Amino acid sequence: MMVNKDRIWKRLEELGQIGKKDDGLYCMALSEEENEAYKLVKRYMEEAGMTVRQDAAGNLIGRKEGKNPGAPVLMTGSHIDTVYGGGIFDGRLGVIGGIEAVQVMNENGIETEHPIEVVAYRDEEGTRFIGSYSGARYRTGRPLPGILDHVDKDGISVREALRSCGIDPDHVQDAALPAGYGLAHLELHIEQGAVLESLGLPAGVVTGICTQIRGEYVITGQAAHAGTTPIRLRKDALCAASEAVLAIEEEAAKNDPCVATVGKIQVKPGGVNIVPGEAVFSLDIRHLDMNVRDEVLKKINERIDAICKKRNVQWKLNVLSEDKAAKPCSEKIQEVIGEACEEAGYPVHYMPSGAGHDSGAFVGFCPMGMIFIRSKDGLSHNGKEYSSPEDCAAGVEILYRSMIKLGKTI
Amino acid sequence: MMVNKDRIWKRLEELGQIGKKDDGLYCMALSEEENEAYKLVKRYMEEAGMTVRQDAAGNLIGRKEGKNPGAPVLMTGSHIDTVYGGGIFDGRLGVIGGIEAVQVMNENGIETEHPIEVVAYRDEEGTRFIGSYSGARYRTGRPLPGILDHVDKDGISVREALRSCGIDPDHVQDAALPAGYGLAHLELHIEQGAVLESLGLPAGVVTGICTQIRGEYVITGQAAHAGTTPIRLRKDALCAASEAVLAIEEEAAKNDPCVATVGKIQVKPGGVNIVPGEAVFSLDIRHLDMNVRDEVLKKINERIDAICKKRNVQWKLNVLSEDKAAKPCSEKIQEVIGEACEEAGYPVHYMPSGAGHDSGAFVGFCPMGMIFIRSKDGLSHNGKEYSSPEDCAAGVEILYRSMIKLGKTI
Repeated sequence: MMVNKDRIWKRLEELGQIGKKDDGLYCMALSEEENEAYKLVKRYMEEAGMTVRQDAAGNLIGRKEGKNPGAPVLMTGSHIDTVYGGGIFDGRLGVIGGIEAVQVMNENGIETEHPIEVVAYRDEEGTRFIGSYSGARYRTGRPLPGILDHVDKDGISVREALRSCGIDPDHVQDAALPAGYGLAHLELHIEQGAVLESLGLPAGVVTGICTQIRGEYVITGQAAHAGTTPIRLRKDALCAASEAVLAIEEEAAKNDPCVATVGKIQVKPGGVNIVPGEAVFSLDIRHLDMNVRDEVLKKINERIDAICKKRNVQWKLNVLSEDKAAKPCSEKIQEVIGEACEEAGYPVHYMPSGAGHDSGAFVGFCPMGMIFIRSKDGLSHNGKEYSSPEDCAAGVEILYRSMIKLGKTI
Repeated sequence: MMVNKDRIWKRLEELGQIGKKDDGLYCMALSEEENEAYKLVKRYMEEAGMTVRQDAAGNLIGRKEGKNPGAPVLMTGSHIDTVYGGGIFDGRLGVIGGIEAVQVMNENGIETEHPIEVVAYRDEEGTRFIGSYSGARYRTGRPLPGILDHVDKDGISVREALRSCGIDPDHVQDAALPAGYGLAHLELHIEQGAVLESLGLPAGVVTGICTQIRGEYVITGQAAHAGTTPIRLRKDALCAASEAVLAIEEEAAKNDPCVATVGKIQVKPGGVNIVPGEAVFSLDIRHLDMNVRDEVLKKINERIDAICKKRNVQWKLNVLSEDKAAKPCSEKIQEVIGEACEEAGYPVHYMPSGAGHDSGAFVGFCPMGMIFIRSKDGLSHNGKEYSSPEDCAAGVEILYRSMIKLGKTI
């Protein structure tokens, strides 16, 4: 193995101290914690011998020059931000892995034809705000419309959060890369599911990323006194929302491997002695096949409509983001990663990605590919998320070998 | 009519400006708005010719001396605080009505044997924190155990909120009245239901207050990634909570007029792309008969236990407050109010109270009684809550006549 297992692990652990709480990691997009983590990542990039810059959207970029400095750039990277109470591997392994790959190249005097850039993207999770891969989207010139005005649960807008990180929200679009800039985008990531573990494999080659819709349902009933309003006279928005949550779960289950999740819910006025007049809850629905995804959502909405008619309340769904095209990985890159696996002595296993990733933002901009490594118990977005030092190093070794192949030969 | 309809209405409207928002009144317990409203109420009490003091728990008390200053005190009053997005009548009518009654007595040179105190109680709603009638409870020497450590949704404790209002949390117990202090506690309040309206009556004589339990359910599942965790492998705390909310609704409906409400819900971690690992939601359950209430709660808990077993998640119910005794109104006072209704020219209608009230805190301390007036559409805890100027004045007239009878003759 060429890559340094201990250095990878030490950096994962060191980076995982920032924002650490009892129930996991709180390193939210565009937060003080993310800024602090960026400083550390910048140091790792410099230790690896890269020149470091930040783009207009706040993404951190370490560059290793190519023999042909004007050639399209081989990009690799992932994100630093976490969900509320997340783990130390999600996203971070791809950043630390890319840095490690370059550091080992430099330690061994390996040059590539193409320049290499390792990127730590901002705001991948879309948990604090809404809409994922914001940093990567700026880079490919396709930010989510209206994203700057989204607010977090404390009422802070993306615009304000960017400013607090020293990023000018009026110039984020300057981060857009010119057409032809990218040779390929390669990303190492934990699986966040239990497939590799169930097969006893350390790593997999990703075939494509599932398509996703994110939205927010608003159900409007009638606030009323909890003591004097008989159940039969209520227009309880939470009871309607509860039926909706169960319908969403049931329709997704019927269409496995489709998944649909309500991860956020809020009721108003929100008093213990007030019948809820409004319920607002999120929807996240995913399937590799957009048509299946859309069919399931249609069925869900028919059921919610029937529930709300029966209960004499109103509903609407605000779609906040929607993948409009499939997100396949490049076949050429899948082949290269497969060869790298074989050469490093790991079985080659092809698999789709149930989760979204920064690489998805590069579909249509340049070829992209991904490497997965095994997640213990399939856990992710959870403080107990874990991948072993050996599996992390295996993933980085495959990334390293793939980068040399892509950087030299394409 | 002896009382001044326009003065009552003007004061209700003036007081209703403080904390007014588009969707109703936000005058939360122990807030700046409540303090500002208190200043205005103090002015009204002084205009009515009362001497004004604040007790150690922050309750505001206006006193009209009796012919026999040492005789037990005839108390009347209600609260100023509102729920989130409440109305201008709830509680406030009882305070302004008591002040009006004394003002008219003073204008007409009417003296009573017993001293009269009009009280504006703190924190009746229990919406910002948990546990109702806190101000009244201090006065009868029975505060809710541990109340000082409860926190609001912004993490501010009762202790801190009291301090911010200039009230020393370490001495709130000094507000407790000595045994025998009270001759009676009389309260005018809006009905907050639709019974009087359906009968075409302006006012009613209350026979008793329903008994209540308030608690908080905690369901603990397993946080997981929304994209990579198949529905069948999830331990989704919100899906379990949704089934629980519907079971609560159904069991209460089966036992009408029992009511049960989930007015608050929160999920953790709370990200759009995370399967909820924990759901916390409130319970408010009420019935005049404690035994029926307890039977319904038992059935609800059996159903929640079955739901959670099926879903492989954990649950618990933290009971935060529980009425341990029935809260009947004094028969003698009901009789006096009935006579006052007749003398003022209103039909006498006896009715129970579905809502809790400050007067409930006086059960076992001194005899208590209540007067209800008609609520438009039965709406309450809602910005559209409304009672007409005529009905408000009718209620104050009945209160005024009842106070003279009780203050003179008991």
